[in-house]
Amino acid sequence: MVNQVQKVDGSWQSCKSDSSGASNSGESSRESSRCSTPGPDADRADRLREKMRRRIESGDPWFSLEFFPPRTSSGAVNLISRFDRMGFGGPLFIDITWHPAGDPGSDKETSSMMIASTAVNYCGLESILHLTCCNQTKENITAHLSKAKRLGLKNIMALRGDPLGDSWEEEEGGFSYATDLVKHIRCEFDDYFDICVAGYPTGHPEADGYHADLKHLKEKVDAGADFVITQLFFRAETFLSFVKDCRAIGITCPILPGVFPIQGYQSLRQLVKLSKLEVPKEIMEVIEPIKDNDAAIRNYGIQQAVEMCKVLLDSGVVPGLHFFTLNREVATIQVLRQLGLWIEDPRRPLPWAISAHPKRKVEDVRPIFWASRPKSYIYRTQDWDEFPNGRWGNSSSPAFGELNDYYLFYLKSKCSKDALLQMWGEELTSEESVFEVFTNYITAQANLSGHKVMCLPWNDDPLAPETNLLKDELEKVNRRGILTINSQPNINGKPSSDPIVGWGPPGGYVFQKAYLEFFTSSENVTALLKVLRKYEPRVNYHIVNVQGKNLTNAHDMQPNAVTWGIFPGREIIQPTVVDPVSFMYWKDEAFALWIEQWAKLYEEESPSRMIIQYIHDNYYLVNLVDNDFPLDNCLWQVIDDMFDLLDAPPEPLQ
Amino acid sequence: MVNQVQKVDGSWQSCKSDSSGASNSGESSRESSRCSTPGPDADRADRLREKMRRRIESGDPWFSLEFFPPRTSSGAVNLISRFDRMGFGGPLFIDITWHPAGDPGSDKETSSMMIASTAVNYCGLESILHLTCCNQTKENITAHLSKAKRLGLKNIMALRGDPLGDSWEEEEGGFSYATDLVKHIRCEFDDYFDICVAGYPTGHPEADGYHADLKHLKEKVDAGADFVITQLFFRAETFLSFVKDCRAIGITCPILPGVFPIQGYQSLRQLVKLSKLEVPKEIMEVIEPIKDNDAAIRNYGIQQAVEMCKVLLDSGVVPGLHFFTLNREVATIQVLRQLGLWIEDPRRPLPWAISAHPKRKVEDVRPIFWASRPKSYIYRTQDWDEFPNGRWGNSSSPAFGELNDYYLFYLKSKCSKDALLQMWGEELTSEESVFEVFTNYITAQANLSGHKVMCLPWNDDPLAPETNLLKDELEKVNRRGILTINSQPNINGKPSSDPIVGWGPPGGYVFQKAYLEFFTSSENVTALLKVLRKYEPRVNYHIVNVQGKNLTNAHDMQPNAVTWGIFPGREIIQPTVVDPVSFMYWKDEAFALWIEQWAKLYEEESPSRMIIQYIHDNYYLVNLVDNDFPLDNCLWQVIDDMFDLLDAPPEPLQ
Repeated sequence: MVNQVQKVDGSWQSCKSDSSGASNSGESSRESSRCSTPGPDADRADRLREKMRRRIESGDPWFSLEFFPPRTSSGAVNLISRFDRMGFGGPLFIDITWHPAGDPGSDKETSSMMIASTAVNYCGLESILHLTCCNQTKENITAHLSKAKRLGLKNIMALRGDPLGDSWEEEEGGFSYATDLVKHIRCEFDDYFDICVAGYPTGHPEADGYHADLKHLKEKVDAGADFVITQLFFRAETFLSFVKDCRAIGITCPILPGVFPIQGYQSLRQLVKLSKLEVPKEIMEVIEPIKDNDAAIRNYGIQQAVEMCKVLLDSGVVPGLHFFTLNREVATIQVLRQLGLWIEDPRRPLPWAISAHPKRKVEDVRPIFWASRPKSYIYRTQDWDEFPNGRWGNSSSPAFGELNDYYLFYLKSKCSKDALLQMWGEELTSEESVFEVFTNYITAQANLSGHKVMCLPWNDDPLAPETNLLKDELEKVNRRGILTINSQPNINGKPSSDPIVGWGPPGGYVFQKAYLEFFTSSENVTALLKVLRKYEPRVNYHIVNVQGKNLTNAHDMQPNAVTWGIFPGREIIQPTVVDPVSFMYWKDEAFALWIEQWAKLYEEESPSRMIIQYIHDNYYLVNLVDNDFPLDNCLWQVIDDMFDLLDAPPEPLQ
Repeated sequence: MVNQVQKVDGSWQSCKSDSSGASNSGESSRESSRCSTPGPDADRADRLREKMRRRIESGDPWFSLEFFPPRTSSGAVNLISRFDRMGFGGPLFIDITWHPAGDPGSDKETSSMMIASTAVNYCGLESILHLTCCNQTKENITAHLSKAKRLGLKNIMALRGDPLGDSWEEEEGGFSYATDLVKHIRCEFDDYFDICVAGYPTGHPEADGYHADLKHLKEKVDAGADFVITQLFFRAETFLSFVKDCRAIGITCPILPGVFPIQGYQSLRQLVKLSKLEVPKEIMEVIEPIKDNDAAIRNYGIQQAVEMCKVLLDSGVVPGLHFFTLNREVATIQVLRQLGLWIEDPRRPLPWAISAHPKRKVEDVRPIFWASRPKSYIYRTQDWDEFPNGRWGNSSSPAFGELNDYYLFYLKSKCSKDALLQMWGEELTSEESVFEVFTNYITAQANLSGHKVMCLPWNDDPLAPETNLLKDELEKVNRRGILTINSQPNINGKPSSDPIVGWGPPGGYVFQKAYLEFFTSSENVTALLKVLRKYEPRVNYHIVNVQGKNLTNAHDMQPNAVTWGIFPGREIIQPTVVDPVSFMYWKDEAFALWIEQWAKLYEEESPSRMIIQYIHDNYYLVNLVDNDFPLDNCLWQVIDDMFDLLDAPPEPLQ
């Protein structure tokens, strides 16, 4: 792509010249909308309507996913895991319906507001929050919108909503139509939100006919809506003629078809009843005979949806497909796979999961300590006004929020107490039985009672592929009481496309310094400190106990960059640092996890609990960095030397 | 070194623990005071008295150099070159005397103020400006100090000065004593300046005896002076007993001996007369017989100074030696070499020369374009309030000052017009004769008239050792009209101690992307653009002519880091970037140099001048970056391909 650069109003601007090949430019645009890239990145900073515009320009169709808020707290934990899993497929956005009966704007972990906030902040998903206006006061609506903005939500689906009960009653000082809500959002929040409105391909059930309803849609768009998502429909031609009619009356914004893969007989009947739609005869004729065969209906639903979507995509007027998931994964993913739209892109824009909060769009460096607990890191830094961009050293005095409530729902373990006890031991008999839990976690082998250790208090997931590179060494040291909770191998310039350690845009090179973080006994630490003298200045260390006694050889408390990447035409990115100041905040959290997540599984005063308590009270948390990244990682040698020293016979008195 | 880290007032601080070995800690301190290190570096940010304190603590004696302002403009150019040369030896500071007769506070290029400012800003030397108070109003003095502060000067030597003429007359509203000046500085500027005062080992000639003078010194120190530099003396014991007497009356600050290597008979007599000192009989007895043999006197002076300095250093009470250089190099450098204090440290804290202005102490990234013209870069950015630290991208819209006056004295060529004509040609006959000048500069071989080309308008010095690595390739392309003005080889992780490409603290690794910048004809550019398509996205290019027509394949105008370093326990440093926005400012300067420095050597309308003017008007300035730094530099292949394309027979018409 050849850019022509011109001075405009005293600043230099770049614009594509004619010599840029169309296909080439398409590809590069596709690149950037798929993988948000580090640094001051246009796509990461873009608002949703801009992302859509770029995907439309490059002819790159997208998909999006609709979810409804869960009813229970454990439902919320499950839904958030589903967000993470379905996020891998690359949705352009998700949306969360507004559930008037479920206190949707509240701080409850199951509210529409909190679920949407979690999706944005903790799962890094571009999200749309639905908002209905009927039966609500203006003040209420403004309060919801202000809260949404504060939480980092940037997109609203403006709906009228269904009246509570049978009769329609206008709220005093409220709104009767979605158009009023759109106007209100634009009036009160200017251009802050991207606004979506609903379209009805077969007409709104309460409107005076199809054409009257089209007019209402035009009014909603004219009032400031950015794009349209339609109600579900069963025939591609229904949608295509609707779009044609919309264009004819001057609706020019994107119109996204709402796709409903039939997943079961009951859910179909229920939805049809709610939406007052008629299921076409040819569909009912297939379904009725197999209505008791869930698998058969689902298969049919997938096939029917795939065929309809193909027609939609081939029409050339559909930029993206919107799926009503019913909070289920299988059918939607199947349809997307068959359409070739589900693309699990192993590329990571940064080594850690990015938050989608607009305040964090420039964030590109974090302390390594929270590598396995990114949601906790995001939670504890949610009140920061600025995020470090490029240098951690700039954020001179990071103030981490307290993490007193270990039961914050998005930090909850996916495992039940029983499952945890099976993995970590119903009864601990010694420190060694704790060593064994750590070792079994590393080896992914079943423990004596036949259960695999799939997580630890510091790691909610099995070992990362990258950590697997160190598996043999980790097993060896954990067996002897070097209880590792975080580590990375050294990397000396692997391609950024490397499936295990790569991240960032293509064509770059990634680097790492070897890192090892573990709990260990004070006896071990005494020997370790002697050994570490031999490794000056190659190895930096920070060693701290729960009381905060801290030993380090780091000069003037500067951060140490341990992961960095070099990319074509960009500044250096150094996304993870070992920061001595943040380490003191992390150690509080790391030590507390012994008690909150593990000790409390056991009765007070029980031997098991006292063993964990003893470790908490007496062990040290150690981190080691091998600065000589081009050489072989020396940290294992450091540990070996420590054991050799411990094993050596005491020196004779002179 | 083991540091104990404790929470003080809510922030984490580090303090040395007892387990730190003394010798080890001494070494590391010595390290940091010698080589100012990148990043938020304690030493670079330290004020002079802190640097002294750290050197004293680590038992690492220093030296410092005194200069007086020159009388002529060409004298100023010479003195600045001398600063650069004598800066290599590692003085802790230099000082510039106040020359009341020479309009010392003015903007004249020969004023004390401007010479000190140049030393600080352009030569990166810690500098002390002398200031005398007699015959000056308070307002005048305050104005001088304010100006010094504005220019980045941080240290003042507070002196009374000698009255003009024979009789002493107190200025109305002025000061009679240096003590008053010290008080005034502290009163008006609080703790901003480090203040030095003069000590008189044999008593001030106008004081009422030695002990009265000691009391005056005590008053000056009590008024706020940070350290003392003494008047010259000829016997070590004179100084040592003076220090003893100072300590006895409670003067505890550093006292630095003023050392005067005798350099000639006349200068000795003159100095003795001015300072009203008596030369000891044993010295006069040696000198008188050889008074007409300059070399013999200088040799004696060196020997005498070395012996005296050895006694001083051995005494254990002398932390550093201060040399009265008389603006000459040889004798002082000889003495320092013999004392082992002259240490030409090849290590560079950053790849470019750092300015000592306090505003710039965090600066650690610059565009590569000014690599050979750092003084011009400093000049053009002197009005910036903030300097990029870590990321260039943060300084979103750099505003470079205009550089209209190419005769700013610190940018003057060290060569005369005649010398330039000899190097660059008394008469140019074609563009090819310009190619030859560039080629001869690269090869360092004499041209047809027998003169070596030692500089070009864009490079005031011969080829850098690093560029020498590319010499053969550069010669080849310059011969064919690729007129290179800046280049660097790719480097994939060489030790930071590498004598040619290394920089930064020890134990690190440095990297570079290959870079090439040149002027060339529009015919070549047309072919080059075709060739560059093959090198997408590996090679980034920016191609611009004097009118500002600019072609680039760089995405969204981001800076490209082309030099970076990884160091133990630190964040990544990326000291040079190719910044597309700054390039547009640089191209104005780079094109103007054709006219200002070269074309104007010739008569208007002369063929030589018209050839340079033609190049200026028609050539393009090109920069190329090879992003694949671990592979072999492909930029030479790009140029080869371009020539192949130009040499190929024209394609037959279809």
